[in-house]
Amino acid sequence: MAKPFQTKIKVRFGDVDRAGIAYYPRIVGYFHYAFEEFWEVFARKPYHQVLNKDHLGFPTVHMEVDFAKPLSFGDLLTAKVSIPRVGRSSVVFRYRFFRGRILCVSADLTLVAVDMRTFKPRSIPEWCRKLFRRCGA
Amino acid sequence: MAKPFQTKIKVRFGDVDRAGIAYYPRIVGYFHYAFEEFWEVFARKPYHQVLNKDHLGFPTVHMEVDFAKPLSFGDLLTAKVSIPRVGRSSVVFRYRFFRGRILCVSADLTLVAVDMRTFKPRSIPEWCRKLFRRCGA
Amino acid sequence: MAKPFQTKIKVRFGDVDRAGIAYYPRIVGYFHYAFEEFWEVFARKPYHQVLNKDHLGFPTVHMEVDFAKPLSFGDLLTAKVSIPRVGRSSVVFRYRFFRGRILCVSADLTLVAVDMRTFKPRSIPEWCRKLFRRCGA
Amino acid sequence: MAKPFQTKIKVRFGDVDRAGIAYYPRIVGYFHYAFEEFWEVFARKPYHQVLNKDHLGFPTVHMEVDFAKPLSFGDLLTAKVSIPRVGRSSVVFRYRFFRGRILCVSADLTLVAVDMRTFKPRSIPEWCRKLFRRCGA
Repeated sequence: MAKPFQTKIKVRFGDVDRAGIAYYPRIVGYFHYAFEEFWEVFARKPYHQVLNKDHLGFPTVHMEVDFAKPLSFGDLLTAKVSIPRVGRSSVVFRYRFFRGRILCVSADLTLVAVDMRTFKPRSIPEWCRKLFRRCGA
Repeated sequence: MAKPFQTKIKVRFGDVDRAGIAYYPRIVGYFHYAFEEFWEVFARKPYHQVLNKDHLGFPTVHMEVDFAKPLSFGDLLTAKVSIPRVGRSSVVFRYRFFRGRILCVSADLTLVAVDMRTFKPRSIPEWCRKLFRRCGA
Repeated sequence: MAKPFQTKIKVRFGDVDRAGIAYYPRIVGYFHYAFEEFWEVFARKPYHQVLNKDHLGFPTVHMEVDFAKPLSFGDLLTAKVSIPRVGRSSVVFRYRFFRGRILCVSADLTLVAVDMRTFKPRSIPEWCRKLFRRCGA
Repeated sequence: MAKPFQTKIKVRFGDVDRAGIAYYPRIVGYFHYAFEEFWEVFARKPYHQVLNKDHLGFPTVHMEVDFAKPLSFGDLLTAKVSIPRVGRSSVVFRYRFFRGRILCVSADLTLVAVDMRTFKPRSIPEWCRKLFRRCGA
């Protein structure tokens, strides 16, 4: 059964601004942290291997983000990662960050598979498509 | 006549990833650079004064971004800032980054006016509303 | 017996530059991560509480760093934190980052205790001095 | 006559922490901004060309920094770059950041010349040595 991947993210001192809340470009950086954890923990294949051995990369081409609640230094977030859509060469990663039961940030990022040697789009390989489908919407 | 504000942004060494292209959380940081320049140059009132003297801040609550073209270290971008919508307590800032004539990044960010002493939403003051309207869609 | 505090640091995708190695300002950011972990795990008092409840902060006034070996995306570093010197209002934090047995980065940072309400230097409180002495050189 | 290179650096909103002062890893990032400006303006050869065409890079191997005064959002710093020492394969870049006449940050960074294709140290080419000597101590 497909189900979301879950990991933890700490809001760091260096991520908050002078108002004491996380600066939004840093929250966007959290999406990539969660993406890296997805590869390492869920896929059991660290992203640096995907990049360096499979020559496969996933640059982000589109992003929609809701910052529903401000995040503070010291918050320990639960990050849920799910994959609502897998296309031929693109895939949508959904990130939802919770503090306790409160949804603080939600985002859909569209990534495109590229060959890292040419940086040209390519179709998502079958092993990868299967992996993405295991991570429910 | 309302017209977009224009400024320049350099893609820095520290902004590019191992694929040699700008890492997307850093591009999101460029939106805030352009926002700061908007205040300093277009509004002639630096944002730190808005925060510290007017006790007025504009956290981002929603964001939609298209990364149409990758950005490389050394690129000098033309950033166009316009304001397609001004509401009672929210405003939409539109950012478009060009390399020459090529549109590389476009984004709509929804900001909410808050009182910096309480971090509660407030209505956009009249002087500010006028300023935003001068910056065309 | 005083002994160093130890934690783990992952080199993230967003920390490496186009040469594929960690960009030095990001490595400097790791010192603060290790400092935050020191408070949370070793001191059992998260740094945000120190800042917000004790009104005590530790800005860095001096830093000496050796980047002995380049760090790559995917490296899992062992960070050793020790405190070779505790003064009246200043303290030296020593950070050493290892990949396996190889020492990759070593640094001494001098921090000064300040009252967070006035940002003026103050003497290190006794509880804090005791804590620092428990963390060996 | 050799004399320091001078450029301007703005302290950005995203560079300050919740105490309202620039977070030190971000100040370390300013050294690289000033380094990039040195190449573009003083050397008239942008650093991305040095990296990509000359296959020459300068990773930092040692750093000593004094944070004499805190920097605030909105500060416009004068950055002075000088080169006190040129060795066979290493060079020392000195950075001093002033707010008006007040010296706020000073740093010596030791860089090593590497061949970007192999990442092995190499001797500094003669044209580069001449360039560095033109930038006084």
